[in-house]
Amino acid sequence: MAINEMTQKECRELLARSRIARLGCALDNQPYVVPVYFAYDADYIYVFATLGQKVEWMRLNPRVCMQVDETNAAGWASVIANGRYQELAEPGFVEERARAQKLLETYHGWWLNALAERHMKSPDDLAIAPVFFRIHLDSITGLSATKIDAPLEPV
Amino acid sequence: MAINEMTQKECRELLARSRIARLGCALDNQPYVVPVYFAYDADYIYVFATLGQKVEWMRLNPRVCMQVDETNAAGWASVIANGRYQELAEPGFVEERARAQKLLETYHGWWLNALAERHMKSPDDLAIAPVFFRIHLDSITGLSATKIDAPLEPV
Repeated sequence: MAINEMTQKECRELLARSRIARLGCALDNQPYVVPVYFAYDADYIYVFATLGQKVEWMRLNPRVCMQVDETNAAGWASVIANGRYQELAEPGFVEERARAQKLLETYHGWWLNALAERHMKSPDDLAIAPVFFRIHLDSITGLSATKIDAPLEPV
Repeated sequence: MAINEMTQKECRELLARSRIARLGCALDNQPYVVPVYFAYDADYIYVFATLGQKVEWMRLNPRVCMQVDETNAAGWASVIANGRYQELAEPGFVEERARAQKLLETYHGWWLNALAERHMKSPDDLAIAPVFFRIHLDSITGLSATKIDAPLEPV
């Protein structure tokens, strides 16, 4: 394996073409990791989720770490970013929420629709109301690995 | 989407057939998430890694969270486990390290070989010496989602 540090451009390209991240948060030094659907745009990733432990924890401690990777025949690439949680809560953040919704609908419309449908069926269940948030990316690093004898394909 | 809690048996079956986990650790309430190769056995997952931030952090705070998932045409399943870091450091842990090495070689031999090869080429570089550790799994939970109109396949 040849392991190399990725450039900032390569890291951001991977974020731009990825759809699922693993998001880590922490409370009282207990880490918690969950998969999330996201959309990357400039210095942010936009995420929607249902209310639950991760949102509750990030409200109390906004420091998060996200990890995104991909594999192919030639090897793998993994990007890790540290950032800060910002909830796009009503009534503020009108523009930001619209931006998040537009970006996320492009890739994850089926999931938003499924949530909306469930919410319509049981409107009293706050737990399935979607929460929009974004993570401001403070630092981004990445490693890519290529098998020495692998065909020369971009990772 | 029909979302269901997985049984303990289902969670452990997913761990048993998975090879990559996302491992979260935390220091001073800053989370850190990395992908790791692992092998599951009873109440432990066994992992090897090179020395670096995650090992340094887990030595200082052994509380970790691991997340494993899989997707197929019918939906997805995700398991989250909280546990505690235990380094299988020499000269102790002779049996445990042998057990870890045997389990990991079964699935990840190519990676162990690649590490050994790099280590032989630059034996002074401690950073690429493999570190074996295990995580004692204290609690395991999982969710599986099946698309309503998906073919009836096991997730």
